[in-house]
Formats: sequence, structure tokens, C-alpha cells
Amino acid sequence: MSLPRATPVREVTSLSVPPDTLVPWPHVADLMGGWPDSLTVGVYDGTGPAPADLSEVRLYVLPYAKGPETVRLAGRMPKLEVVQSLSAGVDALLPHVPPGVTVCNGRGLHDASVAEHVVGLILAAQRELPRWVRDQAEDRWRPHFTRSLAGSRVLLLGYGSIGAAVEARLLPFETTVRRVASRPRPTESVHGVDELPDLLPDTDILVSTLPLTAETTGLLDARLLAALPDDALVVNVGRGGTIDTAALLAETGSGRLRAALDVMDPEPPPPGHPLWSTPNVLITPHVGGGSATFYPRAERLIAEQLRRFAAGEPLLNQVTRPA
Amino acid sequence: MSLPRATPVREVTSLSVPPDTLVPWPHVADLMGGWPDSLTVGVYDGTGPAPADLSEVRLYVLPYAKGPETVRLAGRMPKLEVVQSLSAGVDALLPHVPPGVTVCNGRGLHDASVAEHVVGLILAAQRELPRWVRDQAEDRWRPHFTRSLAGSRVLLLGYGSIGAAVEARLLPFETTVRRVASRPRPTESVHGVDELPDLLPDTDILVSTLPLTAETTGLLDARLLAALPDDALVVNVGRGGTIDTAALLAETGSGRLRAALDVMDPEPPPPGHPLWSTPNVLITPHVGGGSATFYPRAERLIAEQLRRFAAGEPLLNQVTRPA
Ligand SMILES: NC(=O)c1ccc[n+]([C@@H]2O[C@H](COP(=O)([O-])OP(=O)(O)OC[C@H]3O[C@@H](n4cnc5c(N)ncnc54)[C@H](OP(=O)(O)O)[C@@H]3O)[C@@H](O)[C@H]2O)c1
Ligand SMILES: NC(=O)c1ccc[n+]([C@@H]2O[C@H](COP(=O)([O-])OP(=O)(O)OC[C@H]3O[C@@H](n4cnc5c(N)ncnc54)[C@H](OP(=O)(O)O)[C@@H]3O)[C@@H](O)[C@H]2O)c1
Repeated sequence: MSLPRATPVREVTSLSVPPDTLVPWPHVADLMGGWPDSLTVGVYDGTGPAPADLSEVRLYVLPYAKGPETVRLAGRMPKLEVVQSLSAGVDALLPHVPPGVTVCNGRGLHDASVAEHVVGLILAAQRELPRWVRDQAEDRWRPHFTRSLAGSRVLLLGYGSIGAAVEARLLPFETTVRRVASRPRPTESVHGVDELPDLLPDTDILVSTLPLTAETTGLLDARLLAALPDDALVVNVGRGGTIDTAALLAETGSGRLRAALDVMDPEPPPPGHPLWSTPNVLITPHVGGGSATFYPRAERLIAEQLRRFAAGEPLLNQVTRPA
Repeated sequence: MSLPRATPVREVTSLSVPPDTLVPWPHVADLMGGWPDSLTVGVYDGTGPAPADLSEVRLYVLPYAKGPETVRLAGRMPKLEVVQSLSAGVDALLPHVPPGVTVCNGRGLHDASVAEHVVGLILAAQRELPRWVRDQAEDRWRPHFTRSLAGSRVLLLGYGSIGAAVEARLLPFETTVRRVASRPRPTESVHGVDELPDLLPDTDILVSTLPLTAETTGLLDARLLAALPDDALVVNVGRGGTIDTAALLAETGSGRLRAALDVMDPEPPPPGHPLWSTPNVLITPHVGGGSATFYPRAERLIAEQLRRFAAGEPLLNQVTRPA
């Protein structure tokens, strides 16, 4: 089914004892045939007041995309061992997690959702969907020839979980796709990031899925953007901070480049910021991962992590290990 | 390259004798290493005044999507043997072609262009791109969860040249796709159109690429639309007349169904027509086939047809044969 599941109602399981495990959705129990016997599971989806007694929580599954309050809650969990995020990018979370606590990310959960949004952004830009939306609002029928996706040369900057999912979806569109990661992996035809200056001049569509790290911050700067050919499209679904916003706005504002951004810096842009209004820039409000297909995937991950946690087995998707 | 080629300038090759062949673009000669010796080729792209003397024209390649004037020109060609259309759908052309004249269509030329537009329309609808476009215009950041394409059950109504191209592009999106044509072809897993009442209830996304014929006119009527489940999406890139517009507007206006239409009836809708403004309806102005990737394909077809015509070989894509 493609219907978005209704946001689950806030539900704090009434427990006689404080929970040692906090999960965002009760459905997970259905997948597991009930909660593991050794765990006392509370449910908190990040809306409304948090459970009063968090003193026993050892495993905290962060409500998805419910803001900094849910992260700060970890400060009230003295026995915390594991924070499970449902995001692939944990850059904003890491500084708030006490040392020694294991962080697991949501790598893989968003692949399908983000990858289809990438294709949607590319097709919207190439086939001028924003123009047709505006024309429809004014009862205007003004067909004209557009760019195609077919025949385009795509460069994937970041060839990890999401990058590979984007590639699988783009190939049947008669595109050529090249791959870039932090280091070359010649056996997989993956280029290293140092080769960008050579790769960009032959790129019609640049898709960035870079995480935000010390190395990627501001990586796509004025010099690299200048290496793209005229009319190239820059798609960013990684993190806004990986692109020099001023440089990108200069190139799009002049009409030389085009951009479709699900993430940007600043995010959200304040009202009046040129990201909203610069010609050739399409923005969506960081919704790449936020679609219905996320829920069943997230629930399966949480169920597996609870099973492992209860059984004392190593958890999946560990980003940090206890010191 | 994904850039739209500039519309070729009107060019009526100055010939000392009247042309026996009329083509829309001079580039075709480059593909052929010059025009065939036995043909006298004139160039007319459908803009500006037509060549004065059409009395010798035997093969007329219609300018693409340049309106009824270019079709009426055939009336001034007493020796006409072949009209080559660059459209897949020749329903509007056929009544204007004198009897005995062979019509060849542009089957295949638009597959990639239309198929990618179908995916763009589906993703725009599932991921709510029109909403983000409107929000961007008002500097509004209002993320929310949307539907996905992943997990959707797609039904292709029409499994010909374009239908197959749509399927190839949709499969990597974690969809299930079923095929319907005029008659069942069990060895290819193609259902017959009579099975629609059984197939529609399990369909999240219905994609119609039906041509307009006596059998398909009004085929998707109120009863068949009612067989779709709540929230299903109807995509039409075939011909508008294959759907009962009033029935579709009733189902979308009530919020029960959604629609994304590149073709519609009436087309274009007059200003104020409910097709423009009914909730849940996204329309684009018949631009499915109109993208850059069309040109090289059309030029290759024209070159091949000219070669065959000069050599007396059977032409490709014949829709009608001389009586
Ligand atoms: N828009 C959204 O809603 C949304 C949703 C989910 C995720 N995201 C973002 O997408 C990012 C990627 O997610 P993912 O699951 O694909 O992560 P991933 O599997 O870890 O892949 C990241 C890729 O980036 C590459 N990379 C890292 N540093 C690099 C550098 N300095 N230069 C070049 N390449 C570099 C990695 O290279 P190696 O292969 O060499 O390691 C890897 O190929 C997340 O970190 C998150 O920020 C956004
Ligand atoms: N939006 C645009 O810009 C655009 C551009 C190009 C074309 N088009 C439209 O797309 C149409 C299809 O193009 P195409 O190249 O895919 O044509 P095609 O290869 O001839 O395929 C047409 C398909 O429709 C099926 N069909 C015909 N009558 C039917 C009926 N009564 N019930 C069920 N299925 C039926 C055919 O069934 P069989 O396989 O059994 O014959 C075939 O599978 C064109 O006719 C044109 O109107 C639109």
C-alpha cells in the first residue's frame, strides 16, 4: 500500500515499573509476537509529555524527526547504553549523546524513500514540473519542449546506501552513471573524491548524498561548482552544509546552473532568504526520507535491535562504540 | 546532453526544382552523409510560410506538433504517397489524409520521453511536489510525511511501446507491475482489457497509455473508476478521450481518487474548466513526448525512412497501406 500510515497516536504504555527500553511505536510488538520477556518496553513517539520516570532506560529508540527535545531526553537516562536513531545522518545527534553510549543509525531505512525523491527532483527539474504547477494554478496551457532525463550523464557524489539505491532507479532511464566515494574502489568502478575536478566537466546531473563530516563540510565550493558545464543540475539530499550555499546561489541566480535541494544551509532557510526565490532553485523541506515506505522498514529494524539487545547480541548499524 | 536543442530555424532549401520529399530538419542530411541522390529534399519545419510549389511531393514528413495547418498542407500535394507523422497517436491525422496515402507513425520515438514523464507525474503525486512548489513560492517550510512509490501496485493499461518503457523504469522502485492490453497474452503475462474489473481493486496506481480508437473512447468510465480503491492515482498519457472526464472529476473532487494527466478531454481545457482546479488533479500540457531526447530519435527514423523510400524498400511504422 502506498497510503501514509496515520501518525501513531501518542501512547505511553502504562507500566507498573519504569521502562528499560523506549520505542516510538507499539506496532513493533506485533512484528515480534509480543515484547521480549526480559525487557520492560515503554512507548513514546515524541509528541506530548515524555514518560515521567526515565531512570531505568538502557535502550532509547529516538522518535523519528521529532526535534531536539527528544534528543535532550537522553540527559534524564543515567543507565543509557544505546541510542537508536532512525536517521541515516546522526551528525546533529552525536554531540548530545553522553560518552560511552553506543549510537546506532538508521542506515538503509531511508534508501528507497530518498532515492525515489531524488528521481522525483531530477524529473521535476528536467521536465519543468514547477512550471506546469504554476501554469495550472492560472488556467494556462503553454506547452513547450523541455530537457530530458534520457541521455543525461549523472555523477553520484557519495556511493553508499542511498547512492546505490539512486543508481538502481536511474539506470533504466537511459542515463550514464558514475560513482564517487571518499576513496577510489577501482574494482567497483568507484572514483575517489579527489577526482571530482576531472569528473564534473562531463556531468549533466550531480547527485550528492554526502553525510556531514569535517571532510565534507563546504566540499562543493565555488571552484568545484564552476567545473560543472552550463545548465548542469545539482541535486542535494545529503546534508546542506556540504555545499557552499552562496556559491551555489551565485551560479543558479546567474542562470548557469540549476539546483534541486531537499537539504540546504541554512535549514530551514528563514523567510526572505534567497534559497526560496533564486531562479533555477527548487527546494523541498527535507522530506526525502519522510514517506510511507519508511514505517515498515523502521519497525523491522527496531524489532531486530530489541531482539539482539535482549539476547545480548551485537547491535546492527553501530556508529559509535562504548569507550 | 540533456539540453533542449534550439528549435531549428525555418529553412526552405532553395531548390531549382520542386521537392519530392519534405522533411522538418536539415540535420537529417548529416546522419545520411547527404540526401539520397534520387530524392529532391526540401526542408519545412512548420513555422512560417510553406514552400510555394508542393505539386511534386511524394513523401511528407509532418513537422512535429505544429498544428492542423501542417496537416492541411497535404491537400496541396497531388502526388503524395506517404505521410510520416512523428507522433505515436495519429487519430487526429487520419481523417485528413487522402485515401490511398500511406501513413507512418512515430511509434517508439516518444517512449523514453513519455515514460520518464509518467514516472515524474507519479512521483510528483506520491511525494506531493506541487505542494512543495507552492510552499516555496511563499517561503513556507512545512515538511510532512507523504505517500511513497515504493510498495505501490501499478497497473499498466496499454502494454505497447510506451507501456513497456514505463514498466522498465518503474520496476527498480520496488513496485509490482501488471500489464493490460486489448487481448490477453498469457505467455507475456498480459491481461486482456475485459479483466479490468478484477484488476482495478488491487491497483494503487493506474497508468493509461491507451490510443484513442472506437473501442477505447470513454473506456475508463464511472463504473471502472469506482472499482479502484480509495486514494488510487490515475495517470493518463495516452489520449484524454479514453477517460470519462466528468466521472474522473467526481472521484477526484470528492477526494477519493487522485489524477495526474498529461492528456485530457477537453484538451486544452478552457479557462475556468474544473480540470484546472479540481483538488487532487495535476495536469501538464501534453508535454509527455516533448523533450530533448525526441530529436535524435526522430532524426534517425526520418533518415531510415528516406533511405528506404529512395531504395524502394518497405517503410517502417506503417499504420495504413495504400488501397
Ligand atoms: N534528505 C533526507 O531526508 C535524508 C534521509 C536519509 C539520509 N540523508 C543523508 O544522506 C546521507 C547518506 O546516507 P547513506 O545511508 O547513503 O550513507 P552511507 O551509506 O554511509 O554513504 C555515504 C557515502 O558518502 C561517501 N562519503 C563520505 N565522506 C565522503 C567524502 N569526504 N568525500 C566523498 N564521499 C564521501 C561515503 O564514501 P565511502 O563509501 O568511501 O565511505 C559513502 O559512499 C546521510 O548521512 C544523511 O545525511 C538524508
Ligand atoms: N502524452 C504524450 O505526449 C504522448 C506521446 C506519444 C504517444 N501518446 C499516446 O500514447 C499512445 C500509445 O502509444 P504506444 O507507442 O505505446 O502505442 P502502441 O505500442 O500501439 O501500444 C498501445 C497499447 O494500447 C493497447 N490497446 C489498444 N486498444 C486497447 C483496448 N481497447 N483495450 C486495452 N488496450 C488497448 C494495445 O493493445 P495490444 O498490445 O493488444 O495491441 C497496446 O498494448 C498513442 O496512441 C498516443 O495516443 C501520448
